[in-house]
This record gives sequence, C-alpha cells and structure tokens, in this order.
Amino acid sequence: MNVLDKIMKPKSIAVIGASTKEHTIGSDIMKRLQEYKFTGKIYPVNPKGGIIEGLQAYTNVNEVPGEVDLAIIVVNAKFVLDTIDQCHKKGIKGLCIITAGFKETGAEGAELEKQLLAKVREYGMRCVGPNCLGVVNTHPDIRMDGCFAESLPERGNIGFVSQSGALGGGILNILKDLNLGFAQFISIGNQADVNAETALEYWENEPDVEQILLYMESIQNPANFRKLASRITKKKPILALKAGRSAAGASAASSHTGSLAGADKAAAALLKQSGVIREFSLKNLFSTAKVFANCPIPKGDRVAIITNSGGPGIMATDAVCEYGMQMAKISDETKAKLRSFLPAAASVKNPIDMIASAPIEHYKQTLETVIADENVDMIITIYLPFLGLKDIDVAKALMEIKDKNPQKPVIGVFMTTNEFFSKLSDMNVNMPFFMYAEEAADGLNRLNQQRLWMEQPAGKIPCYDVDRAKVEKIIKASIAEGRDQLTTLESIDVLQAYGIRACKYGLATNEEEVVNLGNAIGYPVVMKMTSKTTSHKTDVGGVRVNIQSEEQLRAEYKDLIQKLTEKGLIEGLEGVIIQEMVKGNREMVCGIATDPQYGPMMMFGLGGVFVEALKDVTFRIAPLTDLDAKDMIKSVKAYKLLQGARGTKPAQMEQIEETLLRLSQLVNDFKFIDELDINPLLISEKTGEGIAVDGRIKVRLEEAKKAFSCDCAVCCQ
Amino acid sequence: MNVLDKIMKPKSIAVIGASTKEHTIGSDIMKRLQEYKFTGKIYPVNPKGGIIEGLQAYTNVNEVPGEVDLAIIVVNAKFVLDTIDQCHKKGIKGLCIITAGFKETGAEGAELEKQLLAKVREYGMRCVGPNCLGVVNTHPDIRMDGCFAESLPERGNIGFVSQSGALGGGILNILKDLNLGFAQFISIGNQADVNAETALEYWENEPDVEQILLYMESIQNPANFRKLASRITKKKPILALKAGRSAAGASAASSHTGSLAGADKAAAALLKQSGVIREFSLKNLFSTAKVFANCPIPKGDRVAIITNSGGPGIMATDAVCEYGMQMAKISDETKAKLRSFLPAAASVKNPIDMIASAPIEHYKQTLETVIADENVDMIITIYLPFLGLKDIDVAKALMEIKDKNPQKPVIGVFMTTNEFFSKLSDMNVNMPFFMYAEEAADGLNRLNQQRLWMEQPAGKIPCYDVDRAKVEKIIKASIAEGRDQLTTLESIDVLQAYGIRACKYGLATNEEEVVNLGNAIGYPVVMKMTSKTTSHKTDVGGVRVNIQSEEQLRAEYKDLIQKLTEKGLIEGLEGVIIQEMVKGNREMVCGIATDPQYGPMMMFGLGGVFVEALKDVTFRIAPLTDLDAKDMIKSVKAYKLLQGARGTKPAQMEQIEETLLRLSQLVNDFKFIDELDINPLLISEKTGEGIAVDGRIKVRLEEAKKAFSCDCAVCCQ
Repeated sequence: MNVLDKIMKPKSIAVIGASTKEHTIGSDIMKRLQEYKFTGKIYPVNPKGGIIEGLQAYTNVNEVPGEVDLAIIVVNAKFVLDTIDQCHKKGIKGLCIITAGFKETGAEGAELEKQLLAKVREYGMRCVGPNCLGVVNTHPDIRMDGCFAESLPERGNIGFVSQSGALGGGILNILKDLNLGFAQFISIGNQADVNAETALEYWENEPDVEQILLYMESIQNPANFRKLASRITKKKPILALKAGRSAAGASAASSHTGSLAGADKAAAALLKQSGVIREFSLKNLFSTAKVFANCPIPKGDRVAIITNSGGPGIMATDAVCEYGMQMAKISDETKAKLRSFLPAAASVKNPIDMIASAPIEHYKQTLETVIADENVDMIITIYLPFLGLKDIDVAKALMEIKDKNPQKPVIGVFMTTNEFFSKLSDMNVNMPFFMYAEEAADGLNRLNQQRLWMEQPAGKIPCYDVDRAKVEKIIKASIAEGRDQLTTLESIDVLQAYGIRACKYGLATNEEEVVNLGNAIGYPVVMKMTSKTTSHKTDVGGVRVNIQSEEQLRAEYKDLIQKLTEKGLIEGLEGVIIQEMVKGNREMVCGIATDPQYGPMMMFGLGGVFVEALKDVTFRIAPLTDLDAKDMIKSVKAYKLLQGARGTKPAQMEQIEETLLRLSQLVNDFKFIDELDINPLLISEKTGEGIAVDGRIKVRLEEAKKAFSCDCAVCCQ
Repeated sequence: MNVLDKIMKPKSIAVIGASTKEHTIGSDIMKRLQEYKFTGKIYPVNPKGGIIEGLQAYTNVNEVPGEVDLAIIVVNAKFVLDTIDQCHKKGIKGLCIITAGFKETGAEGAELEKQLLAKVREYGMRCVGPNCLGVVNTHPDIRMDGCFAESLPERGNIGFVSQSGALGGGILNILKDLNLGFAQFISIGNQADVNAETALEYWENEPDVEQILLYMESIQNPANFRKLASRITKKKPILALKAGRSAAGASAASSHTGSLAGADKAAAALLKQSGVIREFSLKNLFSTAKVFANCPIPKGDRVAIITNSGGPGIMATDAVCEYGMQMAKISDETKAKLRSFLPAAASVKNPIDMIASAPIEHYKQTLETVIADENVDMIITIYLPFLGLKDIDVAKALMEIKDKNPQKPVIGVFMTTNEFFSKLSDMNVNMPFFMYAEEAADGLNRLNQQRLWMEQPAGKIPCYDVDRAKVEKIIKASIAEGRDQLTTLESIDVLQAYGIRACKYGLATNEEEVVNLGNAIGYPVVMKMTSKTTSHKTDVGGVRVNIQSEEQLRAEYKDLIQKLTEKGLIEGLEGVIIQEMVKGNREMVCGIATDPQYGPMMMFGLGGVFVEALKDVTFRIAPLTDLDAKDMIKSVKAYKLLQGARGTKPAQMEQIEETLLRLSQLVNDFKFIDELDINPLLISEKTGEGIAVDGRIKVRLEEAKKAFSCDCAVCCQ
C-alpha cells in the first residue's frame, strides 16, 4: 500500500493541537472535518484534554484507542519534532504538518525542517507540509476536508497542488464560485517531503483525478518532474501556473518560500517539453480547468461558431484564427438543412448567424445539425439577450442537445448577467459557459493543444557513435593549465569529435605558416585569432573574412598583429586559425547554457549580430529527444529562412537536428560543460548544411577536475 | 445649437411605430422611456391611434400637438422614407431609426439607405441608424432610455458607441453587473449619417462624458478619425475594441455590416497614432473602463504592492514587470513606519507582505503609509480570505483611506467569492476591485499608457524643401510609356529628388560603359540589373556585390547577360546600375504600402532576407509626424542593432527619422504612389547613415494619369 494513501484516504485522523478557541487553526480544522462529514474517525489531541467540537480530546496521541492513519499537526513549531516521535510510537505513517516556522523563516527554521525530514525518513513516514493549508479528498467514501479554508470543497475531477498556502485558500473559494469541483487537494507548503512530483506520481493512475492543476513557485527536481509529467500528460492534462517569472517576482518568491526560483526560460522549456499546459494567470488557469472538466479531447481543430449576433461571431472568429485553429467548412448538406429552418436573413456560412430573433428551437436545431457535420470538430455557441428569450432556457436547451452528442466539445458564450452564471453554479452542467467569445476560443485552443500533444508519440533520445576519449583529452589538457575556457581550436576539435560538422581549418603561429595553410585550404578563407585571454574575438577585430588571395591574407595577418599589439592584447595570442570560408548569409546560433537549478539548457536560433537584438532563440532542457530537436528548429521565426526564403537554398533540417542532438549528448556526457556556443552555425548556400564556423566552450573547473580524478582506463590513459 | 442635441438631449420624443403588442420593439421602446422616467414628453405614433402604454397615440406625427425634438422610428423599412418626409413637415431635426432592412441586406437595401441619407441631408436633419438599438442619456435632466435592451442603464461617466446592435444590448447588461455606468450611449448601426467620429466630436467637450468606449468593425473616415481622436485623447481616454482582425473575421464583418473591414495592420497603426487604447476583448475593454472610471491618471509608473499572501504578490510583481512598469523603491522612512506596526515576519520591501494574519487595521495603516510615499505612483492592494476577517469590511476600510487620498490610483485585488463583487455593485465605490492580480496590473498599465500619451506633446508634420518637379517629370515619363512600375534608376532618382540619401550610381548599357562607370565610382562596387519586366532582381541573380576590380566587374557583367539570356529575361533589360558599395551588415527596410481603406501606410524595420521571415517591421498611417517617425524606429526589435550591437557603429537616428518623414512627404505629394520599397536601407559602417541602396516604386496608373491631366505650371512645364 502506498503510504500516501494514509494521508489522502485515511480511515482515521488525529488532530494534534486541536483547540476549543474560536478562529484558531486547531479549532477550524476540527470544524471542517466534521462539517464536511469525514467518513472515518476523528481524534482531537490536546494536552488539556476535555471536549473539542463535541468529541473527547486525548492528552497524547498515544492515548487514542484505535489505529490512526493520518496525524494533522497544528502544534507550535517547537513541539513538532516531539510530536513526530509520538506519532511514530503510535505507528502513524501519514503526517500533515500545518504548523509554520520552518524554512520560510530563515536559517534556524531551515535547520528544524532538516531534523523534521530526517525523522520522517527514519520512521518511514510521508509528510505534507510543514507551513501548509492542509489536504482534501472529496470522494464520497472519504469526505476529508483537512483544510482551514473558508469554503467547504465542491466535488469534481481536479487534483490540485498549491505551493502557496494562503493562495490555496483563496483558490478554494473561487473554484466553488466557478462551479469547479475537485477530487483531491494538497497544499504542499515548504514541501519538505511531499512535493508536486509526489502528487503527480500519486495521481497518475488515480481514476478520481482526471486533470491536475499546479500552482508552483519553484520545481524541486526538474529532471524527475519532466520524466513524470511527460508521461502523465499523455493520459490526462496537467495545467500549471508558475509564478516568479520576472526577476523581481522571482526575488519575491525566493524570500517568500525560501526556495530558489528557477530562471523562467528554463521553467518554460521544461513545462513545454513535458506537455504541461502553462497558464500565466489564475483566471486563465481556472477557465482552462473549466473547459477540461466539461469537454472531451477533440478529434481535430476545425471550429464552427453559432451565434445570434454578428459582432461576437466576428470576435470569436478573430480569436480562433489567431490561435491558428481552422474555421470549419460547413458541408453543403449541413447548409441545406440549416437553410430549411433558419430565416432568409440568416447566414449559414461559418460563423453561422441565426440573427437576433432566433428562438430556442433554432438554437437546438442548429446545434444538433452542426454537431453532426463531419467537417466540424469543436463548436462555440453564442447567445446575446433577445426580447422574450430567457438565457437559462437557452442554456438548458443547448445542454440537452450536448447530452445526446457528447463526442464533440461545445462551449457556450452567454453575454448576459452575472445572475445567469450564479444560477448555473447551482446546476449540473455538461458544457462550459463563459461571458465572452475570447474565453471560449482560449478554451478550444487548450483542448487542441492537449490533442496535439496526446497524438504525438513520445520522443526518443538518440545515442551517436562519438569520440569521447578525444574530448576528454582536450579538456584534461585545458584544465591542466587551469583554463576553464577552451580555445577556439580546442572547441572546434571537441565539436568534430562529436560528429558535428565544422569547417576545415588549421592553426598557424607565424606569417609563413599562415600563408601555407591558406594555400592548402584554398581561397577564400577566414582568419580568426585564437587567444587564451580574449573570448569575444569580433569585438577586438580578431575575425577577418573573405580573404581572396595570398597577398590579402598576408596583409590582414600583419594588420591583426599590429592592432593587437596596440591594444595590449598580443600576450595571450596562441596564433590564428585559417578556415575554409563557408558561403551563406544565414547565420544561426546553437549552444548550451547552464541554469543553476535546471541544469544544461540547449539554445537554437538566429545568430550573428542578431542574437541579442532580436532574441529569436529558443531553449530546451537537455537531454533533447528527437522531437525536441525538431520542435526547437520549427519554433524560431528564422525557420522560414531555413526553409529557403527569396531563392536561398533550403537548409538540411535533419542535419541541423542532428547537430542539436549531438550537442545534447556532449553536454550529457560532460556535465561540467558550463557554456557552449556555436555562433555562427552558418547555413551553406551550396549544400544547405549547418556548419559550425566558430565555437566557444567553457567548463566548471572544479567540477571537471573532480570528474577526472579517477583511475579509469578511459579518461586517464 | 448642435443638431445632435436634438437626438441626445431631447425635450420631447415621438415614437413612430409605437405598439401595444408585447415583445415588439414598438412596445419595448415605449416601456423603457417611461420606466426610466424620461424628463420630457413622449408621443406614441401609430396609424391605429388608441392608447399605448397609458398614453394617447397619434395616427400621424403631424397630429402631435407640441414640438418634437427626436423621432424614434420603428416602422417597417418600406415606410421609413415617407416617415422622414412627415418628420420634416413637423419640423423634426433629430432621427433615430431602429428599423432594419437597409444596407445590411444587400443592394436593394443599400439603395433605400442612400435615399434615406439624401432626405436627411436635404432636410438638415441628423440621424442615428438605421438598423440600430437606439440611444441613451442618463443625465438626471434628461433620463432618456431610447433603447430596447433588457436592462435599464446605470448612471456613470462613459460615452459608449457600438457598431453592433445586438452586441450593444449584451454590453448594457454586462456594464450594469460590473457596476459600470455610462453617461451616453449611441448604437450607430449602419451609420448612414451619425458614426463613431460624429460621437467623438460631440463628446469632445461634453463634461458628462469622461471616457469614451468604441466597439467598431470598421472606421469610416480614417483621416478624420485620426484628427479627432488624437486631439480628444489628450483630454480624455478613448478605449476601442476593433473586431475583424483576422481575414476570416474581416470577411464575417463585411458580410455582417456591409462595410469593408480595413486591414488590421492599418487599423492598429491608426489607433496607436491617435492615442486610442486598443483592447482585444470585451472583457479587457470593460476592465479598463472600470479602472478609468475610478482612478486618476498617475504621475509616474512606480507601483507598490500590498498583500497578505506571498503568492499573489509574486504574480502581481510578474505582471507589473512584464508591462515594463517599475516596482517602487519603498523609502526608508516608509519602511520604518511599516516596521513600527507590522509583525516581524512581515516584509516591508516591495511587494509589502503583511502576512496572512493582517487585521483590518494593518490594511488601513499600510495603505495610508504607502500612499504617502513619494516614491510610489500607483498601488495594488491584495486581500486573501483570512479567518475572522470579512472581505467587504476590508474593502470599506481601503475605500475610507482612498477617500482621504484621492491623488494616486489604488486597485484592490480580492481573491474572494463572487458574492463580494455582487455586494460591491450595489455600493458607491471609489476604487476598482478585481478578483485577480493580473487584472490589476493590466489596469495600471493602461493608466500609465494614458499618462505617457498625455505627457507627450502633439507631433508635427515637417515640410522639407524638395525637388517636386523632378519627380513629376520622372513619373510622367514612366506613365507616358504605360509603365506603373518605375525602373530602379528612376526610383533612386525620385528618392534623391526628395533629399533621401541614396548611394552613388550610374547606368551602363554595355560592357565598356560598365567598366568606365566602375572605374569612375571606385571599387568595390555593386552591379544591379535594371529591367522594365523583372522587379525581384535577387531572385534571378541580378544583383552582384563587392566587385573588387575592373576584371571582376567585366566577368560578372558577362555572366549576368548569359544567365538572363538563358532564362529568357534579356528582353526587358535596360542595363545595369553600377553603384558605390556601402559597407555595413545592418540592412533595414522602409517603404510605403497602400491600404484600400486607410490609404498610404509607412513601413520600417529589419530588411534584407529577414523581412518576410522575421516580420520585424512596423506600420504607421501617412502622413507621419516627427513623433511617429521616432516611435517607428524605436518600436522594432532591430532598434538595438541601430543603437550599435557588438561593436558596430551606432546609426544616425535623426537621419533615419528624416528619411521616413521625407518618404511620407513624397507619398503625400503624390497620392497615386501605390508601393515604394527601399530595401535595403543599409546602415553605413563608416558613417552610421541609412543609405538607400535599392528602390522600387509603383504607381496607380489611372490615378496618376488623372492627376497630371491639368494645365498648371508646376506639373505640365
């Protein structure tokens, strides 16, 4: 049996720190458990004993007569460790520690939390919290409201994890108003033990939880999150709100929860690669949840719009098109059917405008006819108030049709009074209703996004045959000299050892060598300085391109030496690299950056001088799957350039994908690579290949040294 | 007296087509006028006479004993012309024609509408409609609800124009729920006479209207709209929702209202240049209106956030930062004051987290303290439910403080139940409240946007000394040959005549001329074909760059001739242009495109092969003001490239601005220019100038011919 069942599906609960004092958590938790009619036994525990909320209180949990599955702990922080010992003595395996005063308060609290976790681990317990709002399970066999929020929970199909306690409480209120019920709720608080990942795993095969909502300020173990989430999202949607996007927000998040808020770029990549639907506001999070709660996943992206007013029909059309979904082509058969009962002034093209006077019967017939059209995957039905027609009656009529045709998503847009929505929230609905057309289009877009993700096979991480030993040798040589930055030459050698296409080159250290190399490679060539001290070569004029002849090469070399001498940069100069000049005006960039929390991230996009100005780059967490690599290339605007714009040669997409995948393998094999830049990855106008024309690699020195301090045959030969 | 006063501030109204039949417009209008207690006289007119809604009906408007200011007409379309005649006979100047069946139904209806308008003009009347919902004025001296919407209107400070009738009705319902009242409402319908511009002008100096909301599907006279709106927005905000953004939406809009929906790019530019705040959904339109209805314009963009829960504080911070506003630096004095009463666990840095247990007194003291901080311009105050605290009491406390400190915008975020908002809508509020933090940040961003616009002086359209005659001569020569497309050579001559910096060039038609020109200009040079039949020169290999010597030039020329011959394109070849080669790798683009409805639009952005792939371009309606030109340059991402990225020379911004302004003057002088492209406008690495390296001009032939068929001294010399 999963120990988490003791917390989420307990047969008996001890409330340690239960209280008779009004408006305290110890009193509120007791009230909630009883009001919501917990199906198991409740044991209040308080050193003073007495009667609490009508139940006999025990002075110690070990005095409780029966078995206890879950202890909800609300005692002062200083008593928590003792309480855990007592729980262990009683044989309790499930804890929910609501008490605050741990990691979130500073170093001392963090130490206390460490001790708390050690005990939990030692005793084989699982623990929600500390510093949390509690846990809820609305299943009729359980009915546990172990939370001190204002409202009692509504029953539904959502599993909800909140990292912020107070926010969790606010959300419970809102969910109720939105007619959104949930199956289980876990306020993870400081997530000492149970975190979002624990919940994901627990809910993966829980039939009661049909969609998962996450409010997160940080992700504890990104790699594990990715593994779990990308598997679960193939079965049920996960919606996430990740706060702390801005630098200021992240700093607030860090002081708030004591957790290091990860860089948002990395979080964005991780969520995308895991198939998680990311929302940027609570409002959108709940709107989307409302849609998933009441709609099947559609078979395609063709949307039909039914309306009794042109304006909102246009607005819905705008929104549908802006999301890249299609306006369904209504079949001739459907049009003929619609014509048979709609007035002449109606439009049977999509959007289907039944005109303002449409009676309920037209709503029913039109929806029924359109739902049957094979060209239609999803439907928005719009109602604007019209004389003598009651909004709630129209809604009921739609739901009646929807009930007979559950196979396609239908969303209602009712531009009417709040009263209508209040009425709905007391009813059993089988489709989502919104006030505005754009909200409906948002919802359909999310359904479509989930469809696309579920239809897509899981990606694979390929393994190429590479010369790992050579890379080790190069890096060892570099760290032996105490350099964390490889030279351009070393960098290009590393890339070539991993099968990445780089251009022909050689190193020269004096004028004669320079000329010999140039002649051997053939003109035009490029000359680049390579230095152990200067990394941004262009900034100091260290790159000379399109050198057409021996004479020009000689002149450029002399000029470079003179300039570097003038600038006092001649010291670190190792020599110059003479390279084949790849012709092409499409400069891409790819590389690796390391996020302190999420680890190595791959980057790809438009390179050259455009990188910083246009920021047309995309990021993914390494290691990449083949699908990740494909998706990266398609998700930059410069993809159009790669396809061949204005008569340029289409790039070899598969070769570029492979470049990214080989880089991903490189950084996976050498985890201490801190930064790697190929800028430019030039698209050859002749072959369409992406060719690494320049490379820059930086390692984390201490980590690299550690990695090599072994006696194995591979790296120490 | 303004004739519109007869419609919007009537002393007496005749309802022509008034009816006793329930649920008809003729009955509803009568009911609404009486229920809302119109302060003037109401005369029902119906051929059958009798008593309608308790009033004696007249069989003809000319039987009405007193004077009539406004006739609300709801008779069948076929009787409308007659009715207008009768109204004229009675001396009525104000009409509101609710009747449908005109332009929106096709050619026949359009003809009827034309006749209707002719009569209105002939009789010196003003007319709202036809095919509209009616008009409303909530001023206590008027109290006119001449509308057949479901709800009675709420009093407020909004002037609202809706192009969609049914939508207008839905909106009236929603506004009421949102506690948003309005001063005047005009449903313009087919806008035969009165349109959005009429309303703007009418409300410009109407003190009762403090903000203007527009729902538009098309803009009738863009130039006039721009003139009016850019003046009025300096005094009061105009918020617009313009539907028909997508191609499909525009097509729906066009079939819906019979109006040509303008390209959205042009509409976007027009609204921006006019200082109109554009919203993309009704939801946002109303949220923003709610903010303007209850907030002063701030003095700056420094935002303070006060919260009792970390999570929403972080989300608000994220949203504030993403809008580019600043998180206020709380002064040390303020911090000390806050410390004096907030608990130790509270954070007095921005966001100010009073922690969950904050009582009402802390809300009051904190808001009062922060509002007084000179480093703070705007405030978001967040409340999450906490045990024993009533949301409505917290709101009242905040409003009490706000009442004493009306100078700074304060927005409340109350993550509580819908009930709270229902309660609010029955109260007099002095600040806006929202459910979610992001909505508050949206609102502050709109206030800030309005502040920036109002602080900015009105732009000026400069007039440069140019050689207009030369351009006329060139274009005349071209049209004389029946060419709508100028050659590259002619195009560059036109640009130079208007003082636009283009590079040195000459035309050569044979090998010897080519070489002579090259030698005269000096190497490196560029060679470009110029042809009367081929406009996209790069696609056929017609541009050769970086030609270093006489020999190379000769070889490239021979190669070009051979290639064109092979492709069968040699026919139209006029020769080749030999140009100075401007060195620089920053290629911009600028030009003119003509929108069928909005006229000439200026474009500026990143050029070369990037134009289509990256679409980093911006548009403005011509003529440009100096501020428009500045703004255009700053609003593309490539602006960073112009500023000088990675050691490139900063571009001469003023010279580039002037280039745009001179182009604007050119297209204003020659309105028949249909397209003009300078691609690239190369940024010289040497001087930072933007230099036109290639040009392409196309005219509308018939229009050009017409423009020149005069005998004036200027163009026919």
